[in-house]
Amino acid sequence: MLQGLRIAYETWGELSATRDNAVLVVHALTGHAHAASGGSSGDPGEGWWEGLIGPGRCLDPARWFIVCANLLGSCYGSNGPGEPDPVTGRVPGSEFPVVTTRDMARAQKRLLDHLGVPSLALILGGSLGAMVVWEFLAEYPGIARAAAPIAGAPRASAWVIALNAVARRAVEADPDWRGGRYEGAGPERGLALARQIAMISYRTAELFEERFGRERADGSEEQTLSSGNAFEVERYLAHHGSKLVGRFDARAYLALTRAMDLHDMGRGRETLERALAPIRTRVLCVGIDSDVLFPAREMRDAASLLIRCGVDAGYGEVSSRFGHDAFLVEFDQLAALIGPLLAEVTP
Amino acid sequence: MLQGLRIAYETWGELSATRDNAVLVVHALTGHAHAASGGSSGDPGEGWWEGLIGPGRCLDPARWFIVCANLLGSCYGSNGPGEPDPVTGRVPGSEFPVVTTRDMARAQKRLLDHLGVPSLALILGGSLGAMVVWEFLAEYPGIARAAAPIAGAPRASAWVIALNAVARRAVEADPDWRGGRYEGAGPERGLALARQIAMISYRTAELFEERFGRERADGSEEQTLSSGNAFEVERYLAHHGSKLVGRFDARAYLALTRAMDLHDMGRGRETLERALAPIRTRVLCVGIDSDVLFPAREMRDAASLLIRCGVDAGYGEVSSRFGHDAFLVEFDQLAALIGPLLAEVTP
Repeated sequence: MLQGLRIAYETWGELSATRDNAVLVVHALTGHAHAASGGSSGDPGEGWWEGLIGPGRCLDPARWFIVCANLLGSCYGSNGPGEPDPVTGRVPGSEFPVVTTRDMARAQKRLLDHLGVPSLALILGGSLGAMVVWEFLAEYPGIARAAAPIAGAPRASAWVIALNAVARRAVEADPDWRGGRYEGAGPERGLALARQIAMISYRTAELFEERFGRERADGSEEQTLSSGNAFEVERYLAHHGSKLVGRFDARAYLALTRAMDLHDMGRGRETLERALAPIRTRVLCVGIDSDVLFPAREMRDAASLLIRCGVDAGYGEVSSRFGHDAFLVEFDQLAALIGPLLAEVTP
Repeated sequence: MLQGLRIAYETWGELSATRDNAVLVVHALTGHAHAASGGSSGDPGEGWWEGLIGPGRCLDPARWFIVCANLLGSCYGSNGPGEPDPVTGRVPGSEFPVVTTRDMARAQKRLLDHLGVPSLALILGGSLGAMVVWEFLAEYPGIARAAAPIAGAPRASAWVIALNAVARRAVEADPDWRGGRYEGAGPERGLALARQIAMISYRTAELFEERFGRERADGSEEQTLSSGNAFEVERYLAHHGSKLVGRFDARAYLALTRAMDLHDMGRGRETLERALAPIRTRVLCVGIDSDVLFPAREMRDAASLLIRCGVDAGYGEVSSRFGHDAFLVEFDQLAALIGPLLAEVTP
């Protein structure tokens, strides 16, 4: 049980006098509250959804009050296993409780209450963010007028669990893991490997072929594989592995992937259908045609199931060679889906 | 450079008086010469292609002289980094030279010479086996009347390299790896993790969902993930990881995946087209519609390229939910493709 909830967040724009223009953006596995520049943090750096949030963009702060909060269990300011506890000051490590997407949705609701936001025009997010969107809808059926879960299903598939499980095992196999009881750097090699495994599932064979083919990292035509970086695609993966190590905590990585695996809207609600039926939100399920991790089929199936449950739902598809990562790349297509959705629910 | 080539092999049936009934079967990454029971080894255990080789089956020893050899670099009796050198008696480890699919094809040709087999009715194999088939065709264009490379392309894609690279990194990150200079067990955890990563790419999301869904290994409905085996799919992967550790050498795993990555028929032959053009064999490229590792598209493209190069080629597809592993499972469909191919080239 958490003592002292701390949620790091950022906002863009102003809550209107009628308090009906709020949009809640939920980040993915290794994301954070800084979704775009120009927000309350004053951080001028580009955010992870810079292409969707900003003046003249789909989510324009001149029109909308946009909120993005760091997920519970993460390592960017909210409570998490690698963050000092706000009450004790100690890093909880393995003492941190197991958190679920439901806990994350509840924490976001607490933030909205704190901000005096009684309802949402829209809640949206990709991947783990979409999972939290789903849980928010089930927990607070009357709060949001529209929702766009992108490339993240009402419950985690065996495939997602499998990929997360091997990534976690890579971290746990690192001798520097020490059951999460470490100070400082921690299991850097394990976390880097976990990220590399995940990176493959975030992209597609087509994109890798086009970008890297059989190119060598050093431009040579040498036949031997003397170093682990002999092929450009290997160098690329290693680079992404190292990059994550520099900015993410391995304990948070485990906590959040565990939350993904445990994600199941049906849990404690008898069935998935019973969890979905109370939703009174226009839900646009967004799939990505090349997604290896959350196949578009799952998002289509979710929309069909919602409709069968009597929920106002639809399906939209992003066509991309970027695979799962398209939700961080294909801003024009996302705007073309989200813009009309927002218009539909705006009085 | 290898001193003293040793190739472990098994045969089924008899070479005919006209010596034109030989079939060469090439195994995949963790395979071996024991493709079926009833062969020269006397081993009554089921082989990895039991469904294709045997009395009344597609490759019937009453009609064909079937040969299967352990690949160079493997750990089932042929020269490999983890096998005692036949000359010195020492395990070469990291001293073992980098081997390629071309070296493997040449070793198989040496075995055919040794057996007095001047030509082949058919050469076939799946995955890494298909890669060796491709190299055999380029090195010995007049030897085989028919060939069936199954789910393995004329050159390794960036996607295959990426998956192999992270699997190798899992082995190398194990403190017990010691640069391959170990005695006894070696990097068991690393090899198990490598196998688990690979297993995901051998199957499909659909199959995992159908088989495991969100089932718990202990049948419970517990919400916490206290052990790494909480979900059935995790237990399944861990089981396959341990199983491989009990039967395979980590150094051989690295040598063979490296050979896969280096596989490129165009290497040293100017272009891929120039490598393919001399082939005088009826080539049936077999794709698997659900293959994540070697997408069917690659096999269709290979057939098209062969035809453009003037080679007698075609494309056949196996429809399966088993993904890449379908070449070890869908015997009826494989027989329906290979049987007619054999009939076509039989006088």
